[in-house]
Amino acid sequence: MLDSLFRPKSVAVIGASNRRLTIGYRIIQNLLDSGYNGPVYPVHPKAAFIKSIPAYPTILDVPGDVDLVHVVVKSSLVPMVLKDCGKKGVKVAIINTAGFKEVGGDGIKAEEEIVKIAKDAGIRLFGPNCQGIMNSDPEVNAYCNFTFTKLRPGHVSLLAQSGGVGEVINNRLYELDAGIRMYASNGNACDVSIPEIIEYWGNDPGTRVIICHVESLPDPALFLKVAKEVSKKKPILGMKTGRTEAGAKAVGSHTGGLVKQDTTTELIFEEAGVISFSDEEDLCQAAYAISRQPIPKGNRIGIMTNTGGPGIISADELIEAGCELPDLSEKTQARLREVLHAEATISNPVDVIATAGPEHYKATVEALLDDENIDSVLINFITPFFVDCEGVAREIAALAPKAQKPIMAIVMTEKEGWAKTISTFRDAGIPVFDFPETGAKALAAMSNYAVRKSLPDEAPAEFSDVEKDVAAKKIQETLDAKREFVPQKAAIEMLEAYGIGAPKSAEVGTLDEALKAADAIGYPVVLKVESEDVVHKSDSGGVALNLKDKGALEASFKEMEGRFKGARFLVAQFIGDDGIEVLFGAKKEEGLGHMVVFGLGGIFVEVLQDAAFALAPLSKSRAIEIMKKLKGYPLLEGVRGKSPADLDLLADSLCRLSRLVTDNPQITELDLNPVFAFGKGKAPIAVDVRIKVK
Amino acid sequence: MLDSLFRPKSVAVIGASNRRLTIGYRIIQNLLDSGYNGPVYPVHPKAAFIKSIPAYPTILDVPGDVDLVHVVVKSSLVPMVLKDCGKKGVKVAIINTAGFKEVGGDGIKAEEEIVKIAKDAGIRLFGPNCQGIMNSDPEVNAYCNFTFTKLRPGHVSLLAQSGGVGEVINNRLYELDAGIRMYASNGNACDVSIPEIIEYWGNDPGTRVIICHVESLPDPALFLKVAKEVSKKKPILGMKTGRTEAGAKAVGSHTGGLVKQDTTTELIFEEAGVISFSDEEDLCQAAYAISRQPIPKGNRIGIMTNTGGPGIISADELIEAGCELPDLSEKTQARLREVLHAEATISNPVDVIATAGPEHYKATVEALLDDENIDSVLINFITPFFVDCEGVAREIAALAPKAQKPIMAIVMTEKEGWAKTISTFRDAGIPVFDFPETGAKALAAMSNYAVRKSLPDEAPAEFSDVEKDVAAKKIQETLDAKREFVPQKAAIEMLEAYGIGAPKSAEVGTLDEALKAADAIGYPVVLKVESEDVVHKSDSGGVALNLKDKGALEASFKEMEGRFKGARFLVAQFIGDDGIEVLFGAKKEEGLGHMVVFGLGGIFVEVLQDAAFALAPLSKSRAIEIMKKLKGYPLLEGVRGKSPADLDLLADSLCRLSRLVTDNPQITELDLNPVFAFGKGKAPIAVDVRIKVK
Repeated sequence: MLDSLFRPKSVAVIGASNRRLTIGYRIIQNLLDSGYNGPVYPVHPKAAFIKSIPAYPTILDVPGDVDLVHVVVKSSLVPMVLKDCGKKGVKVAIINTAGFKEVGGDGIKAEEEIVKIAKDAGIRLFGPNCQGIMNSDPEVNAYCNFTFTKLRPGHVSLLAQSGGVGEVINNRLYELDAGIRMYASNGNACDVSIPEIIEYWGNDPGTRVIICHVESLPDPALFLKVAKEVSKKKPILGMKTGRTEAGAKAVGSHTGGLVKQDTTTELIFEEAGVISFSDEEDLCQAAYAISRQPIPKGNRIGIMTNTGGPGIISADELIEAGCELPDLSEKTQARLREVLHAEATISNPVDVIATAGPEHYKATVEALLDDENIDSVLINFITPFFVDCEGVAREIAALAPKAQKPIMAIVMTEKEGWAKTISTFRDAGIPVFDFPETGAKALAAMSNYAVRKSLPDEAPAEFSDVEKDVAAKKIQETLDAKREFVPQKAAIEMLEAYGIGAPKSAEVGTLDEALKAADAIGYPVVLKVESEDVVHKSDSGGVALNLKDKGALEASFKEMEGRFKGARFLVAQFIGDDGIEVLFGAKKEEGLGHMVVFGLGGIFVEVLQDAAFALAPLSKSRAIEIMKKLKGYPLLEGVRGKSPADLDLLADSLCRLSRLVTDNPQITELDLNPVFAFGKGKAPIAVDVRIKVK
Repeated sequence: MLDSLFRPKSVAVIGASNRRLTIGYRIIQNLLDSGYNGPVYPVHPKAAFIKSIPAYPTILDVPGDVDLVHVVVKSSLVPMVLKDCGKKGVKVAIINTAGFKEVGGDGIKAEEEIVKIAKDAGIRLFGPNCQGIMNSDPEVNAYCNFTFTKLRPGHVSLLAQSGGVGEVINNRLYELDAGIRMYASNGNACDVSIPEIIEYWGNDPGTRVIICHVESLPDPALFLKVAKEVSKKKPILGMKTGRTEAGAKAVGSHTGGLVKQDTTTELIFEEAGVISFSDEEDLCQAAYAISRQPIPKGNRIGIMTNTGGPGIISADELIEAGCELPDLSEKTQARLREVLHAEATISNPVDVIATAGPEHYKATVEALLDDENIDSVLINFITPFFVDCEGVAREIAALAPKAQKPIMAIVMTEKEGWAKTISTFRDAGIPVFDFPETGAKALAAMSNYAVRKSLPDEAPAEFSDVEKDVAAKKIQETLDAKREFVPQKAAIEMLEAYGIGAPKSAEVGTLDEALKAADAIGYPVVLKVESEDVVHKSDSGGVALNLKDKGALEASFKEMEGRFKGARFLVAQFIGDDGIEVLFGAKKEEGLGHMVVFGLGGIFVEVLQDAAFALAPLSKSRAIEIMKKLKGYPLLEGVRGKSPADLDLLADSLCRLSRLVTDNPQITELDLNPVFAFGKGKAPIAVDVRIKVK
């Protein structure tokens, strides 16, 4: 529990100062300005008072119990200070001081040292090299931070890995009148972590929405687990920055090469139900909207406007963001026809026209709220000087308390002249936006969260027919042989053990064995050299395809036997190419499990890098979901006379593959490329398999 | 010349009123509040005074000359009023009154009537159904409009088809401290048009940047011509709304089907050098930036920051928008190393770290301005409480007057507490942004304009070897025969006349002729039925490909002859498929000329709709530019062992096609699908051709 951090009963500042332009002064000032509900104990070696408050030479001299300390002394003094804190029984220490892990070298050791001291002393650490926290709960009012934004109570809790980004977002939320509930920027995060804070806020009734800015995820699996749970209760808005930094290391397989910069974080956000943003303003506006209105049932929006242009813009934005603008029900249309001006447009968007007065707005918003095809109401309102705009705001505001659906208002006006109109909306809890785009994007974020939340939480597919021990044994044998890649025949047997289609095959050493194997398998066959060194075999003449008869096999065998002295070979059924070429892959992500890749084969993957990702293990609906993300998805539905692929069987195989890697964490990379997908009722077959283990 | 509209020496308001909530009162009020530099004449049948100014019963009673009138009387009175205006010698009339073309039916006739009256009387009309104009030039100060945003002088001129959108943008420019130079929203635009206004502003020295919002372009060719000229002098920022409205009509050809909603307007913007926006806020921020700083030489940005996070965000945005962050020169690095803190990061972005003071900012901005690899400087500045932030602003502001490069400041702060810091930047003409994203996007828009402006203006390709009359004759014959499609053989001859590769071919009626033709052409051949009814021939069994010998041709001919009684046939060389399959197309756009389409053939166009567009006639570099836009462009560079296509010859053929359609406006649709592109030195060949004429 992080109560001692976010709801401290008392705060000490070790390194407090009377010099105004220091962090040790600023924290005291912020605590006093915010009206913190507890004692503040400045600690200073000599001063009797800091900013009019009695100061103490060491933490041990402080008279009362101390929940939380700020440590702002220089880094070399931190260990000693922490030991004293331990003796004092301090619960949490915010280490503002920098000079630890972030500087490398000795800093890393210094950080390990303070982590150990704190652990031994039972102190939780926040930071080091960090800002701190805030909590606007009137029972707490804690501004344990040295930043400048004033504490404005709200329902957004904000966690930022970059203190700078956190401050920018916090300041914007202040300006938007959204405010915050709690704030945290924990710098190096040597102990109290981002997932722990998200979990805590998930249980905080005052937090309606969580913002989380990250530059990297040190423990992605934990983040995923926690965020997935919390996002079921309340929206988490995520932002990852550093998208264009030096790319991920190149790796020697197709699958690896497809995992682009940032794919992992974006994928974790997606799997966890975190709504992803790439723009701080959009993020803040969405948080503002969500913090003020109920979560809608779905993404069907009713728009009203009093001028054409802005109504069109909000419609454009909502549709582009995946929302729906349903037709108005007959009943709604009839109601509106009765009350609105003859020139009004009775459709979605409803254009009440500029001369509409308060009664028209009231009737329209009421009708849209009552329409069962509509989940949220978006109002575009340019304030005409000849209309009683305050009256309009009052009528709509009066509807808000009873409304079970979100109401949002885009109020396009001169803010000084129409201040009362704006505040009337805001006081009723209706978020106010300046632009049609802004309001529409914020509502779209809310609505897309609602849709995502309403999807059934399907468990990953389980298979009772897989032979786990077969696969485990093949991997163990590979490792025992100090090989990196599972031999071809063994790899095929691993697929078969998991029910993934593979060509009939046999490993052979001599021409005689090869011919016998081919007879058993049936022509045409493929001949491949079995070699650790020849990874991309087709590049090195280690593969002969479509050998139609004994003669062809014999010729190829002799030729390869000459080039690859002492090698063993695989003889396998030739599958041909009447299927649709796709690829399956998996790649181990340290600390996260396996990322599964599905792509369209051939030119699609080479030219367009057309691939989609998911974390293993997959549910069947998730497998189908990622297939549908491909640009070339229509190919799977059948074009140019080809019959559609059996998506269900394709998804089944992909789920089986995801189980194979999940069950066997020694697999670091797996490529099935190509896999041929076939029509209804025929399971896909993996023609080439490559399994790397460690 | 629109001087009488935008710089009127006197303004009369016909339909002025003393009732405050009327347009007839509001316009008088706005003229007085703006401090208009000329006489205002209210016209009212009875009142002696309107808002303290002497009023006159009719325009004919006004004592002085009248340049500009507002007409706000009801629509039925407008013709009479305009006739009086003619007698009075009024130059321009802004018809605020609605009820004309926009209501359809009689309104259309009413609009035609007033246009005629005005023309006869030598009056220019602005509107009807419109707001009006503004001009903040201190010599004029005209607020001829009934909207609410106050007139704040600036260098942005703003033209909006939707008055609502215009008002929202104008209000935001006011808030941003950008202000406007001139404003126009001309509603139905029955006379004074958008291109005419853009041309006028192009010649206005006080206008540095033009914003143009459109919902449709009534005269796209004129818009294109004017905008192309003006955008060479100053940036035009365009916004088209209504992107998701009911799609363009489906048309019966591949090419037609590829022309998506909005393609035309976006293409016109692109060809005219108009910078396109889809978000009002982004648009306003870019206009603000451009109106305050010089246009840079290129898109190479130097970033400085005092905290990591925001620096990363602005780098992400700039790179994603196509800008470059060049490495700092050795000299710049040495200069910075000398002055900055040891912990500072000397790269691009430069991180001066939070404790940097005014001297560090000065040195960094100076060094970046001096670096010849850098075109613009973007400053990320979070205001630390322990830094002399006003000093920072003062030092940077002092550099601005001498700087030949844009300087932009993202100032992340609490606006009340740091008001002086912000105003110090602004007073020096340095635009101030709240977010790293915002500043970066605005700078990217400016930089991309600079790059576009610096490109040579290559004239469309001319061909001295084309036989214009051959093509013209074939079209005339087709029209004379009352056919919609040019017959196959004639279409092939049209291509040949323009130097576009086509298979050798002959039109035949009998088997005997077919066999003779095939002998002359050489096997393998293709046999196609020649029929108006069979447009997509391959669907109806009207095409036989790859006929390898006499026997095959004979069999196919007999079979088709039986099915297509009395038809004629085309025997043509079979091209095979060793080339890369692409498609060329052209489609006539009414009032604009022809839109040329280039796409990748086969699955790429079917599944991905991978096509790019340009207006005919094309220059060679434009042809290559659109090829490079394709998702599948790498295919043309050669993948999977195929040799790269000869882009130069491909571009040549596309330019020739663009000449063919430009020279022959009777062509409404043209499809060459597929065209096979070949390697170095071998011209592409159009295998199938379809030319629709009217």
